[in-house]
Amino acid sequence: MLLSGKEPSQSLKDSVREKSKLFEQKFSRKPCLAVVFAGNNPASAVYVRNKKKACEECQIDHLDINLEEDISREELIGKVEELNRDEKVDGILVQLPLPKHLNETEIISCIAPEKDVDGFTNYNLGCLLSEEKGLVSCTPKGILYILDYYGIETSGKNICVMGRSRIVGKPIAALLTQKSRNATVTLCHSKTENAEFYLKNADIVICAIGKAHAVTEEMVKEDAVVIDVGINRVPDASKKSGYALQGDFCYSREDGGKLSVTPVPGGVGLMTVASLMENTLISACRRMGIEVEEL
Amino acid sequence: MLLSGKEPSQSLKDSVREKSKLFEQKFSRKPCLAVVFAGNNPASAVYVRNKKKACEECQIDHLDINLEEDISREELIGKVEELNRDEKVDGILVQLPLPKHLNETEIISCIAPEKDVDGFTNYNLGCLLSEEKGLVSCTPKGILYILDYYGIETSGKNICVMGRSRIVGKPIAALLTQKSRNATVTLCHSKTENAEFYLKNADIVICAIGKAHAVTEEMVKEDAVVIDVGINRVPDASKKSGYALQGDFCYSREDGGKLSVTPVPGGVGLMTVASLMENTLISACRRMGIEVEEL
Repeated sequence: MLLSGKEPSQSLKDSVREKSKLFEQKFSRKPCLAVVFAGNNPASAVYVRNKKKACEECQIDHLDINLEEDISREELIGKVEELNRDEKVDGILVQLPLPKHLNETEIISCIAPEKDVDGFTNYNLGCLLSEEKGLVSCTPKGILYILDYYGIETSGKNICVMGRSRIVGKPIAALLTQKSRNATVTLCHSKTENAEFYLKNADIVICAIGKAHAVTEEMVKEDAVVIDVGINRVPDASKKSGYALQGDFCYSREDGGKLSVTPVPGGVGLMTVASLMENTLISACRRMGIEVEEL
Repeated sequence: MLLSGKEPSQSLKDSVREKSKLFEQKFSRKPCLAVVFAGNNPASAVYVRNKKKACEECQIDHLDINLEEDISREELIGKVEELNRDEKVDGILVQLPLPKHLNETEIISCIAPEKDVDGFTNYNLGCLLSEEKGLVSCTPKGILYILDYYGIETSGKNICVMGRSRIVGKPIAALLTQKSRNATVTLCHSKTENAEFYLKNADIVICAIGKAHAVTEEMVKEDAVVIDVGINRVPDASKKSGYALQGDFCYSREDGGKLSVTPVPGGVGLMTVASLMENTLISACRRMGIEVEEL
């Protein structure tokens, strides 16, 4: 079975759009996302364009902050702080990677946690451990949405997370361990010596390594659920672009066979932008003193 | 083998004392810990007394803030904010549990992260995931110190953490997953259905459940390292107090045999206060713009 990201991402965006309309009726303004883009990295330009498009789909305003490649640290921090103070801005997204002379960690740490719709600040990461209300980073949030959408239970299940990145592996491990999810999670990484042991035992495998076909179907249970977060470019002469996109997981049957697998492309990747929209709406509501459910 | 907490805790306190002296020479003041104690819970009174005694041993000033049991939320928050602003205070410890009418989560969230020597705020919890510099909560920090003191390698090892509390299980799992530790961690809890599977495979087991003898030696590898964080009172007619202290781990040979075990009492418990002293020193140094290593 293939766990496509198309239907769940559309369903989430539809839901956000309906709620954004309610928000606008209630507060006479739309939720607003500030998109900070420094420089002109072509891949980033595509991502930024997709985010703005999703805003339009979801009835969310976007405030475009385009900055020069050579913007100084002080100017960029000043800009972020201005957005922190800006009453009409609900969410701030700083598109990564930043130009090389800037320290991403430092810049991200300047975003007010209540506007940090990427969920990258230490405060919001900490909320994943304390189980307090915060903003959850978009890809992990999208993974949970996919699991729920396809009715995949996590409570009491064994989950193997492959990869310990700050934006996927660690937050999804923390989220799945929470009382609302109750999974037993093992976090494997490049220094793990016996990943096979954990993979073979896992009901759900989350691949977030960033290496094409690093995990194969022989390594997992025959009926495992595999969430593939990897989006890797591999040379492919048959494509006009010269490359094809591959996930971290390699399986033989196109439909996954007994496995339940998110395809790449068309899987988790689609959820990330939809989650960003939901985070902007959540942030807008909280800034007005309510939760989304109260709209 | 028994991994006593006595020698490592004394070694850590000795080191903090020597560095506190250097701090005082350099900055003409001692590091200072504010100890906020609301009410008169007798167990808390013992803990508070031990912390003050450790301060004296380590050449750290303590500022004692004793508050009435019925202090209002607003007054207590006001007090914490006053300590946040107080230039001479480096660390703030709010003794838990707080009287029942107060929301602990809310009060803790008022402590400035740079003075949060218990490492309980969301910011400092988030640093465990981002691997940025923060203040690490005392018991997890003490566990790492014990492992290092006895030369127990964590890189590439399989570690099973039993218990997902905010103050022990989750932070120690996050710490051991960091690049500086490189362990492969499984976090088990009350909803885990096959903890035996992970226990039997673990090179190191960390018991932080809070249930006497919940894990037994039959459940772990014969040469496992077991860090026992539990301190449980069990009825014992032979004791004057009517109870004895037991850990979460049950083993038959007094010296642990082939196992390496932290005893209860006299194990991890001793490390917690020593770690608090170190955190106060770290916080004092950072507030003066240096790291402890630069003293």
